[in-house]
Amino acid sequence: MTYDARRDTAHGTGLDAAPTTAGGAGAVLAVDIGGTKFAAAVVGATGEIIVADRVATPPGGDAETLWKSLAALVDSVVQRVPGLDVLGVGIGCGGPMSWPDGHVSPLNMPGWRGFPLRDRLAERFPGVPVRIHNDAICVAAAEHWRGAGRGSDNMLGMVVSTGVGGGLILGGRLIDGGTGNAGHIGHVVVDPDGPDCECGGRGCLEAISRGPGLASWALTQGWVPGSAHRDPAAGGLYVEAAGASGRQLALDAAAGDPIARSAFTRAGRALGIAIASATHMCDLDLVTIGGGLSQAGPLLFEPLERTLHAHVRMEFAARVRVVPAALGQDAGLIGAAALVLAEDHYWTGPA
Amino acid sequence: MTYDARRDTAHGTGLDAAPTTAGGAGAVLAVDIGGTKFAAAVVGATGEIIVADRVATPPGGDAETLWKSLAALVDSVVQRVPGLDVLGVGIGCGGPMSWPDGHVSPLNMPGWRGFPLRDRLAERFPGVPVRIHNDAICVAAAEHWRGAGRGSDNMLGMVVSTGVGGGLILGGRLIDGGTGNAGHIGHVVVDPDGPDCECGGRGCLEAISRGPGLASWALTQGWVPGSAHRDPAAGGLYVEAAGASGRQLALDAAAGDPIARSAFTRAGRALGIAIASATHMCDLDLVTIGGGLSQAGPLLFEPLERTLHAHVRMEFAARVRVVPAALGQDAGLIGAAALVLAEDHYWTGPA
Repeated sequence: MTYDARRDTAHGTGLDAAPTTAGGAGAVLAVDIGGTKFAAAVVGATGEIIVADRVATPPGGDAETLWKSLAALVDSVVQRVPGLDVLGVGIGCGGPMSWPDGHVSPLNMPGWRGFPLRDRLAERFPGVPVRIHNDAICVAAAEHWRGAGRGSDNMLGMVVSTGVGGGLILGGRLIDGGTGNAGHIGHVVVDPDGPDCECGGRGCLEAISRGPGLASWALTQGWVPGSAHRDPAAGGLYVEAAGASGRQLALDAAAGDPIARSAFTRAGRALGIAIASATHMCDLDLVTIGGGLSQAGPLLFEPLERTLHAHVRMEFAARVRVVPAALGQDAGLIGAAALVLAEDHYWTGPA
Repeated sequence: MTYDARRDTAHGTGLDAAPTTAGGAGAVLAVDIGGTKFAAAVVGATGEIIVADRVATPPGGDAETLWKSLAALVDSVVQRVPGLDVLGVGIGCGGPMSWPDGHVSPLNMPGWRGFPLRDRLAERFPGVPVRIHNDAICVAAAEHWRGAGRGSDNMLGMVVSTGVGGGLILGGRLIDGGTGNAGHIGHVVVDPDGPDCECGGRGCLEAISRGPGLASWALTQGWVPGSAHRDPAAGGLYVEAAGASGRQLALDAAAGDPIARSAFTRAGRALGIAIASATHMCDLDLVTIGGGLSQAGPLLFEPLERTLHAHVRMEFAARVRVVPAALGQDAGLIGAAALVLAEDHYWTGPA
């Protein structure tokens, strides 16, 4: 799950295996849309990525600029697999969105407000299923299908990064909820008197444990970013976008800065409380945690586990396990593909 | 949903319509096991109660004393429907239990610890499905099937009484979770620094909002039970078992006692926080609330709504509606029957 710098290009250099037809026949196109990058891949029947590519999200782009950038990326990926028969398209995208029709308004992409992303891709790939879900939900589906959640029928897949999101698998199936928004663990209330949240509420897990929230809190405690000794071994830490300050916090914590470490303890505690609540509500076997902040490792996971197990005392709840996600940055693509390739488990919307 | 005092007999007087064969053919036996009463009913295909009866739970009874009392109740109910063809047996029972095998250890019934309740009833009714679930889960199934949750595919059915329990319906189906324990909203954490909970955790909804918890808190604030004017209009209020003090609190609140009213405000706030968390996690359309404390009406529901809507600000979550349960004390029986009569929606265990 280390961050692969080769992928972080602005112009979409190829990075995977050479073009192939062997695995390409009968694959799906997967698209992962975020505020910092667009990613696309051709994904084979068992979740293997045949080719993949990414571009930086055009900053400040209007609706059509964004779309053209995505369309070019998608075309280039598809063309790299001669003879490809696109069986369907799976899309993961930052929320909010209307679901399952997929009019998207990603928080970090003001150029798209109610943009008919699903419809646009359906026009480009007529006659096959084109399906969309929240990006964190795709990550959860991926971890269940091919990652750290394999074999668990009742799990929560989380992403802890610039935001805190998740997706819920219960009874072996992706749970959508009434509007496709189930799994929003970032807005479980962990401190009713806590900080205001961008959602308009207060004391949500996300308000405390997102990278920028942690960094803000650390600053109020006297943290001086970068003051700690830089440890090259911590160089793999990665926090997306506005989490640049979250990334610095992680580096400083790894280097021993006491305030930075306290910030991760604070985040871990909030995660532990929210996961305790989710476990009681949903009788979970397993929680997977990915995203940039999760790479802080024990700095985050130790206070998380301590707090979680102080709150889950009944036998059924005490069994829950919390593990790092396994699929890294490919999870969003693999999960988007699962909406088509493993539809019995991950799709309840219209065919 | 008013409490029917006629039912609260210790010796099992009949209380429903006269025995009938017409509705009896092809009905199921439903059993509802609680710390204060055993109830049993013959329930017809659309959830109608054909005959029902109840007895007080033998206080301090050992395993076989409890079983004999239940067996006698069950026999008497079945015998009241001549020609009855028992298609199956549905059981609701206080937790914890192993599920779906149904070895029960109800908190308020020390005589049963790992008691094979499902197996015992299966021996008495061979050749038909005999199914068990947590009593609060049965209530949720009932409210979804025939009560206030009809037509909602994503709901939480709650009981707020001596304890705080619930059951979860998502995508139109009862959610079991990994061990049959999904829906435990009583142990969603609403105040990490709050009171100790009987579960061993801290700050759970149940620790704050259960009847006895509320009464204890009110006493610490100077409440003098019964000091307020007794309002006969509040006579319908009912809190089970150890909730006698909860019941008095409700009467005093209804009569205007300011500390008693503050206690219900406190309970409503805690409920609002927990429901906000559950709504974000599960993308709920609806929450139904039954149980003795819910009969306090606006004293409970107004602070609940205020707090809930301060925390659910995103469009998808703000739509959640909270309503009183509709089925009253029959809910447990109707939901137990639903495990057999509407198995497509409410049963995932072995046939």
